Amino acid sequence: MASITVTFNPIGREVKVTRGISILDAAIEVGVPLRAECGGNGICGKCKVIIHEKNAANGIRDAERKHLSPRELVSGYRLACQTIPKRDIDILIPRETMIEERKILVHGIAKKTTLDPTVRKLHLKLNKPSLSDVTPDFQRLQQTLPDSCKLQDLSIDYTVLRELPDILREAGWDITVTIWDDERIIDVQPGDATRELYGFAVDIGTSKIVGHLVDLNTGKTVETGRIENPQVSYGADIITRIAFAMESETNRKTLKKVVLDGINSVLAQACAKAEVNSDHVYATVLVGNTVMHHLCLGIQSKFTGLSPYVPAVKSQLNISTAELGIKTNLHGIATFLPIIAGFVGADALADVIATEFDELKKTSMLVDIGTNTEVFVGDFEGMVACSCASGPAFEGARIKHGMKAEKGAIESLQIKPGFEVEFTTIGDVRPKGLCGSAMIDLVAEMFKFRIIDSKGRFIPDESNPRLRKGDQQKEFVVAWAEETSTKKDIAITQKDIGEIQLAKAAIFTGCSLLMKTQNAVRKDLDHIFLAGTFGSYINPENAKILGLIPDVPTKRIEFVGNTAIMGAKMALVSKKAMKTAEKLSREIRYLELATVPEFSRELTDAMFIPHKDLKKFPSVTKYIDKVGNT
Amino acid sequence: MASITVTFNPIGREVKVTRGISILDAAIEVGVPLRAECGGNGICGKCKVIIHEKNAANGIRDAERKHLSPRELVSGYRLACQTIPKRDIDILIPRETMIEERKILVHGIAKKTTLDPTVRKLHLKLNKPSLSDVTPDFQRLQQTLPDSCKLQDLSIDYTVLRELPDILREAGWDITVTIWDDERIIDVQPGDATRELYGFAVDIGTSKIVGHLVDLNTGKTVETGRIENPQVSYGADIITRIAFAMESETNRKTLKKVVLDGINSVLAQACAKAEVNSDHVYATVLVGNTVMHHLCLGIQSKFTGLSPYVPAVKSQLNISTAELGIKTNLHGIATFLPIIAGFVGADALADVIATEFDELKKTSMLVDIGTNTEVFVGDFEGMVACSCASGPAFEGARIKHGMKAEKGAIESLQIKPGFEVEFTTIGDVRPKGLCGSAMIDLVAEMFKFRIIDSKGRFIPDESNPRLRKGDQQKEFVVAWAEETSTKKDIAITQKDIGEIQLAKAAIFTGCSLLMKTQNAVRKDLDHIFLAGTFGSYINPENAKILGLIPDVPTKRIEFVGNTAIMGAKMALVSKKAMKTAEKLSREIRYLELATVPEFSRELTDAMFIPHKDLKKFPSVTKYIDKVGNT
Repeated sequence: MASITVTFNPIGREVKVTRGISILDAAIEVGVPLRAECGGNGICGKCKVIIHEKNAANGIRDAERKHLSPRELVSGYRLACQTIPKRDIDILIPRETMIEERKILVHGIAKKTTLDPTVRKLHLKLNKPSLSDVTPDFQRLQQTLPDSCKLQDLSIDYTVLRELPDILREAGWDITVTIWDDERIIDVQPGDATRELYGFAVDIGTSKIVGHLVDLNTGKTVETGRIENPQVSYGADIITRIAFAMESETNRKTLKKVVLDGINSVLAQACAKAEVNSDHVYATVLVGNTVMHHLCLGIQSKFTGLSPYVPAVKSQLNISTAELGIKTNLHGIATFLPIIAGFVGADALADVIATEFDELKKTSMLVDIGTNTEVFVGDFEGMVACSCASGPAFEGARIKHGMKAEKGAIESLQIKPGFEVEFTTIGDVRPKGLCGSAMIDLVAEMFKFRIIDSKGRFIPDESNPRLRKGDQQKEFVVAWAEETSTKKDIAITQKDIGEIQLAKAAIFTGCSLLMKTQNAVRKDLDHIFLAGTFGSYINPENAKILGLIPDVPTKRIEFVGNTAIMGAKMALVSKKAMKTAEKLSREIRYLELATVPEFSRELTDAMFIPHKDLKKFPSVTKYIDKVGNT
Repeated sequence: MASITVTFNPIGREVKVTRGISILDAAIEVGVPLRAECGGNGICGKCKVIIHEKNAANGIRDAERKHLSPRELVSGYRLACQTIPKRDIDILIPRETMIEERKILVHGIAKKTTLDPTVRKLHLKLNKPSLSDVTPDFQRLQQTLPDSCKLQDLSIDYTVLRELPDILREAGWDITVTIWDDERIIDVQPGDATRELYGFAVDIGTSKIVGHLVDLNTGKTVETGRIENPQVSYGADIITRIAFAMESETNRKTLKKVVLDGINSVLAQACAKAEVNSDHVYATVLVGNTVMHHLCLGIQSKFTGLSPYVPAVKSQLNISTAELGIKTNLHGIATFLPIIAGFVGADALADVIATEFDELKKTSMLVDIGTNTEVFVGDFEGMVACSCASGPAFEGARIKHGMKAEKGAIESLQIKPGFEVEFTTIGDVRPKGLCGSAMIDLVAEMFKFRIIDSKGRFIPDESNPRLRKGDQQKEFVVAWAEETSTKKDIAITQKDIGEIQLAKAAIFTGCSLLMKTQNAVRKDLDHIFLAGTFGSYINPENAKILGLIPDVPTKRIEFVGNTAIMGAKMALVSKKAMKTAEKLSREIRYLELATVPEFSRELTDAMFIPHKDLKKFPSVTKYIDKVGNT
């Protein structure tokens, strides 16, 4: 029987399964953690997934009609245990179905990568020396290497060389060498040790450190690890940490030490779970934003926080893990992928790598939303990047009832006729606040229902029981006290809406100015990739209504998950991807938005919902016509 | 007035002087340390030098006739203070004229080398960053470099990068970078520090460590340093040291530590004398025999001492001086020149570099005599090398009254009619023994005077008062008790002669087998270079009579001094020379004499004085005819 490819979004994990097995079984096979308390019998109703192409699977079963609302059924919701794909299928996993409460995306999309890691092992049998063959040990080893290794330029770590004569003789001239980038021998072991070859990909986020332990013989992630970035104790955000590091050399060392402790802890976690000896980890690839990059390396980071925000270095760095302080094999190499600019770091570059953005034939856009939102526009012929100061609103800061995407956060919502609000919360519990994706939904829905106007101002409407004068300003009540876990109303204020408009305007302005730089208009955009944890959970229709991203058909919007870690992993398993990173770091142009003369005007225009210039958002005009907004 | 080039041998130092100045003044000008207690007034008679081309200088003056014996006058002896060269002239400095008692040759011949060291400094003024130019610091630095540096591949030491942002800003973007091999920045200093660029060339001998501190802006040695190799405490010879190192890892570390202490002491000595800060020393080039090389690097050296005597590595090694333990600049690089084989080390390769042997159009030979004697035969199209186990006889070991070339050693001698022996001693004191050069003279003279036959056996002669039966065997008295400082006769025994024959036979066999390998006969030899301290003081005529080296016209024999240190210095000041060393290490074939089937027969034949096959020594037959030896 022919196999079917099931793709799980937003984590981008693919699996080939035999025809006839359920989506839940496919998820179990590939290790995607779906909730299914009843074990797949259609009883608990927790394994909800979304399928956009209804014909790609069997018809809806009774068990599903029991657990899914009519609205869910219309929206393509299914129970994974009851759904049998008929052909290749894309599955979207809603947040409530994911097992973990606080999600850190540890997977992103996984483009096909040829397995060709920078580090490799070769099992060699050397001829024993004799008086008629007195070739020195290292040259004897070189001679035995296959032609594919650059013979003449091959070097050997001094510390490995020191012990080489003993190892060769104790091993009876039967050894395994570990070669880095076809140019340096970094380990020699007795016998055939080729199976023990692992790599470690790390995404050093400002809040979280995520690591993949990868078997470099197969290219597969064997285990993952994650931890809060321990630097959080020295400042929740980047600016606070830079300020702390600026105070003294000791502080700089402290921040370096704690982040390395965190990385080592993720490594130890993954190695323990996979029962892999960390001595067998030879290559480590790290990505992170520019400040994380500098702090982790112990590089003076002060100037990345002061205008003109200049980093110390952008090129790829290869450093001995022993020197750096990462506890892999003693002779291991840590590679920091290159960065683009002060606010476009290696994590953003990894997004580009993972999406193979640089190979796209048609102009596309990549947006990774965060406190700083990185945007790329371009194609295989070249691209331009910028960083937008979108601020922490979408992470809950400066929003009255804002919160991070944690348990109890309202993560999506709809306004119903009669101003009823239907919402879902992370962890399926009573809500305590709004996270970013719900903020987008909320502002878009309020706009659709003419609760706010295009300037974001509340439109007086006495028939709306949720619209009221709060402490000092108008607000819209999303959830009443009796519904919430805090026993207080959850509302959005006039000021909150302004913060959200500012954030979205900053992002759209970046998109818009990059498009201008590339001489691209909306219709030229073949794809918009939404990367990162936040980007994976937003409703694309609402994002367009809000005017967060350019108005392209929704099918052209792709959620790509945590591509930073996937890009790091690709560079780990593929020398080509690593070289692409170097090339892109040199070639991607960086646009400093502050230097663009039309920046202020663009930003002001983008404060409107969706935009002052409605021609930019044709798909949104239907709401405006309907409700009479202008 | 046109200048005249005066070349001082055996140290090979050249100086251009104006016509009319004395050889003593020329020596003072170039810093050659000649004895001249009277200050150059022809009174003390100590500044004896030898000139082979009499017409190249003024006629002999009265002061010279007073101090020089008729025999000395015939041999070309002059007083340096009384001799005015008329044209370019070669001066040979006899040992007694050198100021130091125990000579370590710190200079060798100095071929013309283009100044192009691997390490260089560049003074750069960078543009200050701004919002419209946010190029990262390191890339900004790269952009400012002249085109001649490989821009794209340039890397920077991690430890330098860490401080780069601060240095650039504190220095107001006006800096000096130190670049290693056009590919790596190893230091960044504020302002213009280009003048502070020094290198250090080191010859790690089994007995002595010699170092040259070189100004890499001029290529000139500014100071030299020397010391006994402190490893001597753990064994006078190589074999004892290998045995000590084999005992334990701790011993190996001890030998590494003490030799590095020695190197650091030579460096400190030279830096102190020259008033150079060792922080300004960036490049260090080291040569030494294979065992010294391994012991200094802490490489397991056991197997270089066990058949088949295989070294761990032959290629050039570049190691951070900080990692190795040499106290130059923190970011300095130590380069160990490559070796050829277990018994043909980097010191021998440096001989080849210094003599530019690899560029010779005609077949030549290079011989560096020691406990192991390295021989090279070849030309620019290729060469072959071997090591001869000549043993320590020429250094005084196993010879009844043998001694090293130290104060009190008879260093040259002649037998006069009536069996009188005329000799010179190092330091011009009463003799206490014979050093190697005197042993060669002695055996050759005894052969010429038919005191011994071609097999080295004493020929009974009752008219010879010096020939007697000693304790257990026949011996020839060189100096009577009343002449010596020990108040005992200095004599050479039958067994001593055997040891010397064995040593010379080992060397000649190497010469002979290499010539066969290269299809060269005696007449093809355009040059024989005698390298090393010992080789510089032997009498070439007597060497031929003994059968130590092939019988070529004496003018084709060139004494080249301590070429090992000169080769190291050439590699230090010239990237081309360094690359040549790498190339030669790969290309020079090594002949393991023990594997040559005719080795034993060749060795047996070479035990004869000068050789069993007299056709090999036509110039010696005159003595045989005269004295009837066969």
